[in-house]
Amino acid sequence: MPASVPFPEKLHQATAESGSLLCVGIDPDPDRLPETSGAASDPIAATRKFCVQIIKATAPYASCFKVNFAFFEAMGPAGWMLLKEVSDEIPASKIRIADAKRGDIGNTGRFYARAVFEQLPFDACTVSPYMGQSSVAPFLQYPDKAAFVLGRTSNPDADQVQLWPSTSDPLYRHIASRAREWGDGSPGTVGLVAGATDVNSLGQLRAACPEMPFLVPGVGAQGGDLKAVLRAGHTSDGPVIVNSSRSILYASPGSDYAEAAAAAASDLRRRMRHALAEQV
Amino acid sequence: MPASVPFPEKLHQATAESGSLLCVGIDPDPDRLPETSGAASDPIAATRKFCVQIIKATAPYASCFKVNFAFFEAMGPAGWMLLKEVSDEIPASKIRIADAKRGDIGNTGRFYARAVFEQLPFDACTVSPYMGQSSVAPFLQYPDKAAFVLGRTSNPDADQVQLWPSTSDPLYRHIASRAREWGDGSPGTVGLVAGATDVNSLGQLRAACPEMPFLVPGVGAQGGDLKAVLRAGHTSDGPVIVNSSRSILYASPGSDYAEAAAAAASDLRRRMRHALAEQV
Repeated sequence: MPASVPFPEKLHQATAESGSLLCVGIDPDPDRLPETSGAASDPIAATRKFCVQIIKATAPYASCFKVNFAFFEAMGPAGWMLLKEVSDEIPASKIRIADAKRGDIGNTGRFYARAVFEQLPFDACTVSPYMGQSSVAPFLQYPDKAAFVLGRTSNPDADQVQLWPSTSDPLYRHIASRAREWGDGSPGTVGLVAGATDVNSLGQLRAACPEMPFLVPGVGAQGGDLKAVLRAGHTSDGPVIVNSSRSILYASPGSDYAEAAAAAASDLRRRMRHALAEQV
Repeated sequence: MPASVPFPEKLHQATAESGSLLCVGIDPDPDRLPETSGAASDPIAATRKFCVQIIKATAPYASCFKVNFAFFEAMGPAGWMLLKEVSDEIPASKIRIADAKRGDIGNTGRFYARAVFEQLPFDACTVSPYMGQSSVAPFLQYPDKAAFVLGRTSNPDADQVQLWPSTSDPLYRHIASRAREWGDGSPGTVGLVAGATDVNSLGQLRAACPEMPFLVPGVGAQGGDLKAVLRAGHTSDGPVIVNSSRSILYASPGSDYAEAAAAAASDLRRRMRHALAEQV
């Protein structure tokens, strides 16, 4: 697929091809790698093998992969080399999301964008909006790329900030409106991170931002939540991408981790399809 | 200096030893390196030499160095190796600030903290507060380290977010109160980033947070602003660290860049001392 396909079209193709809204989150925690992986003697090699096997095993069931930079940076310079190697293993037909939560003034942001879009092969990056439009704009200078702006995150203490000053007029809804404006030039290239843990908010955000892609973390093993998320957030114009990390990566602690991850991803895709079929 | 010195004490020692509140910002833009640096043929080597020379030349006049991760990440895995090499060149007697603007849920944040405090030699990290206390807490797990929380940043479009919902009760002041609470366990280990461009806000933040260290970017070559910043923000309990990046790094485009940087840093220190002497 040529690099010039606009992001919304590439996302559409990736979901159509895989029949899936699943995003597999690559968060390799060295303490949770399978015992048989050799992590104790060579954590870099063990992490590489683990990630590559997970990507291969789950790719048939996923439209997107999201790579969490923190887990690689914690390994130092060798971790960044590994970040590049692992990212390069994700098939180019998938949406590759840099989960890096960058956000700075424009002069700095353009270097962050260069890192994820030129040095690394990502199609999109998660961005923290605290510094305003500057945080996001550098990522939109690339016509085929996208930014997912943190909106309503799934951790409980996010309320301290994201509900300011009140639940009736909270910051996260203000951010969603601003993010929609920031993406006015090319709809579908500014998305929103909106947690599965607050389905009401998700529905309100969808009503306010009908064409934005939503990246939804926080879906566990519960089919009920998944259904509610899709009902509240997914439309033909405004896709939901459902991220699952730990429940796929660590589906088995044994040497069959890749098969177990494939089974978990396949099961999530099946439950998504079922939920969407019920909606029609 | 042993690593076990608490952060507020180390900051105090670093400012006393250098007689300076200056933080030199290391933001090596490849397009602005001196023509004589050889950046065209070997950008990594040229950036390494440039940063090392700047650190050596300005260290006598500075208490702190702030390294901007974006400029290194934009060079890919080799840039992260360079980030480590350059950071290791900063004398351990200085406060070394990772300007990385990280911020995520706790399970991810502890890996970001490991990256900057274990893989790299930093004493503090800039942190975006959008995800709540989780964003900051992992950095406070290290007893001798600190986090500088984004409060009121100096870019004009930050108003879109940081003044929500109103100038009379803005988000940034709410963040400052929360940040003070997050640091309650060990005063002086949670600081605030507060731009020099809004001196009134700086004074209000100082009144609300008497013991927090403030990291103040946005001071240009103007002595007036520097005076106003120190008057509004600096007290014996609540230190201000004044960051200057471009006006020092690019003080001369020629081969005398290091001498010019030293002169610019020395001049800033002289003007700071003059301003502080006038305050007494």
